[in-house]
Amino acid sequence: MGFIKPSNVVGTMELLPNEQILFDNVKDIIEDTFKKRGFLPIDTPVFEKNEILLAKGGGETTKQIFKIDSESKDISLRFDLTVPLARYVAQYFSDLNFPFRRYHIGKVYRGERNQKGRYKEFYQCDIDVIGNGKLDIKNDAELPYIIYEIFSKIINEKFAINFSNLKIINGLFENLGVDNKTDMLRIIDKIEKIGFEKVVEELKNTGLDGNNLEKITEFIKISGSNEEIIEKLNSLGIKNELFDKGVEELKEVYNCMKLFGIPEDCIKINLTITRGLDYYTGTVYETFLENYRQLGSVCSGGRYDDLASNYTSQILPGVGISIGLTRLFYQLLDKNLFKEIKTNSIDALIIPMENCYDYAIKLLNKFENSGKIIQIYFEDAKMKKKISYADKLNIPYIIIVGEDEKANNTYTVKDLKTGEQSTVDFEGLIKLI
Amino acid sequence: MGFIKPSNVVGTMELLPNEQILFDNVKDIIEDTFKKRGFLPIDTPVFEKNEILLAKGGGETTKQIFKIDSESKDISLRFDLTVPLARYVAQYFSDLNFPFRRYHIGKVYRGERNQKGRYKEFYQCDIDVIGNGKLDIKNDAELPYIIYEIFSKIINEKFAINFSNLKIINGLFENLGVDNKTDMLRIIDKIEKIGFEKVVEELKNTGLDGNNLEKITEFIKISGSNEEIIEKLNSLGIKNELFDKGVEELKEVYNCMKLFGIPEDCIKINLTITRGLDYYTGTVYETFLENYRQLGSVCSGGRYDDLASNYTSQILPGVGISIGLTRLFYQLLDKNLFKEIKTNSIDALIIPMENCYDYAIKLLNKFENSGKIIQIYFEDAKMKKKISYADKLNIPYIIIVGEDEKANNTYTVKDLKTGEQSTVDFEGLIKLI
Repeated sequence: MGFIKPSNVVGTMELLPNEQILFDNVKDIIEDTFKKRGFLPIDTPVFEKNEILLAKGGGETTKQIFKIDSESKDISLRFDLTVPLARYVAQYFSDLNFPFRRYHIGKVYRGERNQKGRYKEFYQCDIDVIGNGKLDIKNDAELPYIIYEIFSKIINEKFAINFSNLKIINGLFENLGVDNKTDMLRIIDKIEKIGFEKVVEELKNTGLDGNNLEKITEFIKISGSNEEIIEKLNSLGIKNELFDKGVEELKEVYNCMKLFGIPEDCIKINLTITRGLDYYTGTVYETFLENYRQLGSVCSGGRYDDLASNYTSQILPGVGISIGLTRLFYQLLDKNLFKEIKTNSIDALIIPMENCYDYAIKLLNKFENSGKIIQIYFEDAKMKKKISYADKLNIPYIIIVGEDEKANNTYTVKDLKTGEQSTVDFEGLIKLI
Repeated sequence: MGFIKPSNVVGTMELLPNEQILFDNVKDIIEDTFKKRGFLPIDTPVFEKNEILLAKGGGETTKQIFKIDSESKDISLRFDLTVPLARYVAQYFSDLNFPFRRYHIGKVYRGERNQKGRYKEFYQCDIDVIGNGKLDIKNDAELPYIIYEIFSKIINEKFAINFSNLKIINGLFENLGVDNKTDMLRIIDKIEKIGFEKVVEELKNTGLDGNNLEKITEFIKISGSNEEIIEKLNSLGIKNELFDKGVEELKEVYNCMKLFGIPEDCIKINLTITRGLDYYTGTVYETFLENYRQLGSVCSGGRYDDLASNYTSQILPGVGISIGLTRLFYQLLDKNLFKEIKTNSIDALIIPMENCYDYAIKLLNKFENSGKIIQIYFEDAKMKKKISYADKLNIPYIIIVGEDEKANNTYTVKDLKTGEQSTVDFEGLIKLI
């Protein structure tokens, strides 16, 4: 019989146990930080009815969905956690308490082309706060704090949470009476890549001129400290309600972010963020590693006016942030940017000599409530092989139990790093390990 | 515009946040118990290539798979975690250390008919120990201990880990020269449902008679304490190598289970377990709640000779146990069998009065490393509504901060159960909550 070549589907991440432990630890840090702030977990099926997934119509993302060839032929794998959230909140509306603060860590699916760092299956870690009818702007400042806390725990690199408020740029365009807004925003969005000069040139090419060109140029040129940027927005001389509202919200979110404890150098007002214009309506976030801007935003989100308009007439405004964990993990591992997070999971390996299994198991039992992770090596093998097993799994100590130890109620423990070896009682063992 | 009815796919479990917290806590208990014994995590994609999933050919399970209608049309959702394990171990063979002890908690998919307690998507929690070439029998005793530990932590109900060794019944049939073994075993498997007398009748109907009928009847009639069962097996007078090996293994596993610390009354040798005959070759397990036997086995597994024979000529014997968590959770919740596991997740809700948000946020910051879960209620609402929000989320304390508290650097804390209210400083607050 021929063998089948064992391989996972291309474009999926699969890790060896040691890397998996690191991944799980990072995931746990994210989850624990969400929990600590009183966010509640939800877990929805990985597939949804097509009428739910395709409710927003066309779009790039919906072209990438994996349809399931089931009897009913009307379900597909979810491509994000936002559509399931909207469906969930509408479905269980009367059972939920608003503001509803939920987190969701789960896998999502997109038919991405095979490409380094792009995944067909990847973890998203989402938090959202959803209001019933209205939602206070201060929520827009707490979410970035949570993101700040998470990134502080997992990397040593400098990072900054960039944010803006889409009311500002929308108000500006409204005030100027510009009609091909979408084109303009697409150009402005490229400023990071092509630079200020090229953006102005491209804006000119769209036919923009006179006062409008001047104002927009002035707007995208705004720079300086966060305080200075707010100052300059105020003195731009735009008379527009939406614009004013945006600046006011931006200012409140900024002040509140500092109150929550995000250091000034991790906050960056960035007026050229134009993400999710069809969806976000106020605050928008992107997060960059200062020395690795080419990685793009590692955590993004924003404020939306109405989460579940496809399902209900209830107005459900919300704000959310999402970490694409699989891609982030790949990037941080690739660039070696993780803080040192504990990756060895076994504290000691008990190696019983012949006829001493009972004594070994009794020792294991003694560790029951010690908080230590202990394993017995049961297999029949040469001592060298047993020690090499411990070595490969980064187990720091081996505990050898033979006839002598059994007779004297002791244990011989060896530190595999230093090679030091001593024979001790259980008290001594607990102290050592 | 008409609304779309928000609903999840039929046959999937979806929980409200409070139940979800309970579910997650149970899942964490399982994962922590696996980890404590030095099992390593793996996480594989939910879809596999069809050639992998269908490698074993036909069978009931493979008829139920969800195919994905992708460009390449050759992937499907996994129906268990064993096929991915076999593929993973073969694929990364040279990077793994044997015995490879892995756990895997993940969702699997089966096109089950819509039926109460049957799920199209459900969590499995699997542990397996895989040897390279050989694997010591004592591993077969450690896995049930882990299961014992888990069930002791999550339920108050009496449960027993039933086990047998398939070499015994296979050896018996080999010795008797019975050729329609599969039919016989299918009949014996029904003993729980139809009783001893009916099983004997059905065995007779297959044409079984004379010495063979007598021996098999004698075999399935074996009862008593675990010690007595082993005694009776020895005195059955079967001269067969496989049978003897099975009895010897059964005895060693039994003794070793007790050494690991499983109480005698949670262990039950059950010779009529005939599960997975095409797959298991030695020890087999089923776990029953003594007062709810109608629920069937809540945790099953066994010993296999060769995990990855479809992919490699390496002989990889292993032993594994699996908990079908979604179904188990549904059953335990339905029958109200859970031990009391913490389900309220927020320790206190800070309610700021007007113009006191800064003071409220500073208070929240003080709790940063307290281990407490604290939330601020930011929304503009009547006090009654705010308290009702805390009530519905089972939050035990509210902390009111207004102008007076801000001026005196104090906090007014109210116990929502007793109605008691006091104004204290931060030290006092930490003591109370």
